[in-house]
Amino acid sequence: MVITAKQEALVVNSWNEMKDDAPTFALKFFLRLFEIIPSAAKRFSFLRDSNLPLDKNPKLKAHAMGVFVMTCEAATQLRKTGRVNVGANTSVQHLASVHFKAGVADVHFEVLKFALLETIKEAVPYMWSEELKEAWSESYDHLVVAIKNEM
Amino acid sequence: MVITAKQEALVVNSWNEMKDDAPTFALKFFLRLFEIIPSAAKRFSFLRDSNLPLDKNPKLKAHAMGVFVMTCEAATQLRKTGRVNVGANTSVQHLASVHFKAGVADVHFEVLKFALLETIKEAVPYMWSEELKEAWSESYDHLVVAIKNEM
Repeated sequence: MVITAKQEALVVNSWNEMKDDAPTFALKFFLRLFEIIPSAAKRFSFLRDSNLPLDKNPKLKAHAMGVFVMTCEAATQLRKTGRVNVGANTSVQHLASVHFKAGVADVHFEVLKFALLETIKEAVPYMWSEELKEAWSESYDHLVVAIKNEM
Repeated sequence: MVITAKQEALVVNSWNEMKDDAPTFALKFFLRLFEIIPSAAKRFSFLRDSNLPLDKNPKLKAHAMGVFVMTCEAATQLRKTGRVNVGANTSVQHLASVHFKAGVADVHFEVLKFALLETIKEAVPYMWSEELKEAWSESYDHLVVAIKNEM
């Protein structure tokens, strides 16, 4: 089993704490990414073609929520089936193709992971621990490996 | 003039505040980089070939100090000559060649800039402002452009 029952519980419980404000945290998560790599914004077609400020772009918020939710759900899927299954309306193959076309490299996935963990740390500081960090890291890493394997 | 007298003063004055503890701040600066992009450590020959923990590696500290000092000095050089001159014992061409061989990409320079600014913010919080951030950003950007032009 690639993820322990305790790790799944850590991810799910902290997600339940963040859930009500998830769109806000998700947006912060991606704004953090663009703070670290400003050029990454140019890789998103819906940001390139828009005049809206980043924090007002509804598609960015939706995309960020998608990543956040998928990472959380990966923990449960890994426990249940031993693999990541990104959802009914999309597929790992589709995600791989979109990210490949956008020129996403390993380093972008690394920075996004840092941004995710920093966002969680700020969202639930009273729950934050090395174990919580490890649990989210495991989920994220498996999700990314699944996507990269198809890229 | 690519940098204003006020920007040069902001960089030099904040550097003077940090100078006594510069090796510590420089190390934090690069540890921050590796926190965001763990794989970046593999690009440094002196880290690949060493069993020392990152924070005990004397070459990492020296390298980090070099980058920090060069960025600070770039402000003064830009005021004086309008261009960046990295120092008597090295050259922009040499730095470009080393970074090219190590496979350093634009995104690494972006993340390093973020790490530098975060380090300064933590080192001199009482001096931190948008203007100070801009001043260090200008210096750093010109230094990086000089290196990238030769890459």
